[in-house]
Amino acid sequence: MKRRAAIALSFAAASFGLSPGLIAAAPALAPAEIVAAAPASAWRPVAPENLLLMEMGDGRRVAIELAPAFAPVHVANVVALTRGKWFDGNAVVRVQDNYVTQWGGADPKRARPAGLVKPPEEYARPASGLALRRLPFADPYAPMTGHADGWPVGSDGTLAWLTHCYGMVGVGRDMPPDAGDSTELYVVIGQSPRQLDRNIALVGRVVGGMDVLSSLPRGTGDIGFYTDPKQNVPIRRAWIAADMPAAERPRYEVMRTDSPTFAAFAEARANRRDAFYIRPAGGVDVCNVPVPTRKAG
Amino acid sequence: MKRRAAIALSFAAASFGLSPGLIAAAPALAPAEIVAAAPASAWRPVAPENLLLMEMGDGRRVAIELAPAFAPVHVANVVALTRGKWFDGNAVVRVQDNYVTQWGGADPKRARPAGLVKPPEEYARPASGLALRRLPFADPYAPMTGHADGWPVGSDGTLAWLTHCYGMVGVGRDMPPDAGDSTELYVVIGQSPRQLDRNIALVGRVVGGMDVLSSLPRGTGDIGFYTDPKQNVPIRRAWIAADMPAAERPRYEVMRTDSPTFAAFAEARANRRDAFYIRPAGGVDVCNVPVPTRKAG
Repeated sequence: MKRRAAIALSFAAASFGLSPGLIAAAPALAPAEIVAAAPASAWRPVAPENLLLMEMGDGRRVAIELAPAFAPVHVANVVALTRGKWFDGNAVVRVQDNYVTQWGGADPKRARPAGLVKPPEEYARPASGLALRRLPFADPYAPMTGHADGWPVGSDGTLAWLTHCYGMVGVGRDMPPDAGDSTELYVVIGQSPRQLDRNIALVGRVVGGMDVLSSLPRGTGDIGFYTDPKQNVPIRRAWIAADMPAAERPRYEVMRTDSPTFAAFAEARANRRDAFYIRPAGGVDVCNVPVPTRKAG
Repeated sequence: MKRRAAIALSFAAASFGLSPGLIAAAPALAPAEIVAAAPASAWRPVAPENLLLMEMGDGRRVAIELAPAFAPVHVANVVALTRGKWFDGNAVVRVQDNYVTQWGGADPKRARPAGLVKPPEEYARPASGLALRRLPFADPYAPMTGHADGWPVGSDGTLAWLTHCYGMVGVGRDMPPDAGDSTELYVVIGQSPRQLDRNIALVGRVVGGMDVLSSLPRGTGDIGFYTDPKQNVPIRRAWIAADMPAAERPRYEVMRTDSPTFAAFAEARANRRDAFYIRPAGGVDVCNVPVPTRKAG
């Protein structure tokens, strides 16, 4: 067993661009320890114009980084809806265990704010222009997976798409080819539903307050909808950080996935050698390498 | 795209032992529809001696099927602890978002009931004697994966082990080689932490009331521990169904993973062709083929 683990390690070290010597010399840090020791250069800020903030009825807050590089029209709609106060006084209406929490549909017939555009599919984008750090392991859903600019990504070499990992935020839609107008958003709260990749638009990922959305009571209606509007979980308001005075904006950071720290983190996720572990797996899937995020300042 | 999907489909149909003709002729049922239409023969009962029931302080109940075929000594300890009332008046003490809910450690110094055995590792068992229905897709953690007798399984052909999927229940332990005495149990509440496979003993899986354990407030202490005993979530009592009068026992069923229904279910999970989906993935991972369970009668 030890021999096999060592072989897997050398392979992983080479695949991750780390020298085997470096690995052998390094203490067996846990992924969390690698994150804690990350230099400032390993982090990038979340741009204020991409930071969606949401305050629930009980005052707790959720922070979401939007991904205009992957779904620009959908993201523009989310921003227009937020600025048009669509989410203010709205609610979480669905929580399906091991699947999604969904909000924005408390009153679907309410008039939409101006500025919405009927979006194209935006379920994938050209792979060119994205610096994909590949994971060197097979994935049952995509020809290749990895990370680019802090996002989990699948790709076939020509196209690239965000993957449905825990905490990823998408736009609910009806049947194809209607792509949804961004009035209803969902976040993944369970096992990654990768079957949704390339079938629905992902627009971002929770970077703060994930527990606010993951620990809500599960709905007892069909596919987790609450059966009584009284069960809805109120959203007091939502806003874009760029619309706040600069000094008041909360600041979030995402680990740069092209940093040496992230390479070490991903390698450690695939090969746990910290004290608790007996047998490093020698592999990992893209959703089990969650990109570290933090609140700064 | 359509052409590629068709190719993936034929491959999957062959891999799952279904004739392509059958697939082509079949309506595009969603996995949930396949489960709803399953004949009685597609289900097996959960044996009362393997059914652990737990009632929380608020009266809500959780049902867990134990897996003595994989971890007999650990399971015997769980049963001895339950019969010795270890879990009665105990509590959930840790909820780490996207990881685990853990219970049984409200008073770790309390005297153990009689009958506990120091367990061996029990992190894997011989593959022989298990009828593994393989999934025909690559997995980054194990040479092969699939299902046996209603359980998600990884294997290298010689050994086989339960995989850490959503809802699986394991035994907390300290550092190796101490294997844990089953006084603290955990359940997976997020992305499958497959790095734990073969590093810790899995003893079962939640078959009812999963939302009771998944929607609890997350702990704010290190690795999700509650910081104040007042935050602990009380467990009123736990018992084994076999110890109840037969007529009063709740009855749970698990889909037979060697049934044609399960084959169709797994194939549909890998290739969603129901109305919502545009692009079937053409693959799936073992934790994204959750074995259907239900309460009977």
